[in-house]
Amino acid sequence: MGPRATVDFFLKLIEATPAVVDRDHIPVVVYSVPQVPDRTEAILHGGPSPVNELRRGIQTLENAGASVIVVACNTAHYWFDEMQKSAGVPLLHIVDAAIDELQRVTRSAARIGLMGTSGTITSDVYGRRLAQAGFQSVVPYPEDQEDVDRGIALVKAGRSEEGAAHFRRVLDTLIARGASAIVLACTEIPIALPAENLSVPIVDATAALARYSVRYWRCSADTA
Amino acid sequence: MGPRATVDFFLKLIEATPAVVDRDHIPVVVYSVPQVPDRTEAILHGGPSPVNELRRGIQTLENAGASVIVVACNTAHYWFDEMQKSAGVPLLHIVDAAIDELQRVTRSAARIGLMGTSGTITSDVYGRRLAQAGFQSVVPYPEDQEDVDRGIALVKAGRSEEGAAHFRRVLDTLIARGASAIVLACTEIPIALPAENLSVPIVDATAALARYSVRYWRCSADTA
Repeated sequence: MGPRATVDFFLKLIEATPAVVDRDHIPVVVYSVPQVPDRTEAILHGGPSPVNELRRGIQTLENAGASVIVVACNTAHYWFDEMQKSAGVPLLHIVDAAIDELQRVTRSAARIGLMGTSGTITSDVYGRRLAQAGFQSVVPYPEDQEDVDRGIALVKAGRSEEGAAHFRRVLDTLIARGASAIVLACTEIPIALPAENLSVPIVDATAALARYSVRYWRCSADTA
Repeated sequence: MGPRATVDFFLKLIEATPAVVDRDHIPVVVYSVPQVPDRTEAILHGGPSPVNELRRGIQTLENAGASVIVVACNTAHYWFDEMQKSAGVPLLHIVDAAIDELQRVTRSAARIGLMGTSGTITSDVYGRRLAQAGFQSVVPYPEDQEDVDRGIALVKAGRSEEGAAHFRRVLDTLIARGASAIVLACTEIPIALPAENLSVPIVDATAALARYSVRYWRCSADTA
């Protein structure tokens, strides 16, 4: 829901689109209203629910003509079913996009390290879907999770380099604990920490969602 | 109308906004539909007019709740009056934003070099407003204009570095011809050529529009 993450997704969508002239690009409407209540606060501490604002965003995009909708925020996927129910068009799920990339870069049954907000991690936005796809999850220990949350807050404040230092520490810990691939499962993280191959493959969920969206778009154009 | 230019504007808007947490950011709806007919083709060669598509974009943004609208394409400002007439909310003009910055970086009556599409340059999107503000315009010679247009096409094709070489050549020529400041008056140009101070001040019209939008937003919030 941070606008930098939205821009990061938009840019990755453009980069994932084979295009030489403007009209080759996918028509896009973006709803970036960062006044939506904090997702992690709602999940963990009984803060105001963002669900009405999320539904309003979905409705606005649908009214603007969207034929498929993606939400460039991992934590908001806690309310995926509610969003999908209120929509008259398909929503693509960011975890499905990440799994699609994991299947290309790592073996089945691998241990997947997850870096996301404490809302995403605690509410298991990833765990169940990863398990269904045959992957195990490795989540940060509480003190490492605090490091991730601090890093995310720094990125939101425009202090990406300081944020990256927090992310790198947790990344190393997850790898030391046996993760054979890592998912950057908060859209603020890849802004600060590029998904370069370290000692294990890194899946940037934002970029995965962008590529997944382009494939969806091209397939639906082919079959339309 | 190129999506990279739209993203560039969006990022510059975020950077121009004083913000520490998500909710400090301006709520934004973006309409990026690059299937709109080519603006320069319509102005110079009788190609299909983009005006209905531009109006549709304005209408979509207004329906989505926009209380002020900006168009991150200089050439499209050829149809500014038509867009404004069809809108129930104010549109900010990119040339007003550029003039606002020129008045900060150069003296009155200065000669201003313009780099934009041949549509923008030939149809004098800038010239009249600059003259009203007391500035003179220096526009590229035909062979230099071809260089600018080639550079813009390269940026649209994702080949920004090659585009930059064309822009630099024209920039040097405009300075040699006495321009005491340059306006990057096509939103594709600053993607390739950052508005760094060279021997004269460079005004990036995209960044100028972003800062102008933030000031407008803050003033209307203060007086609301």
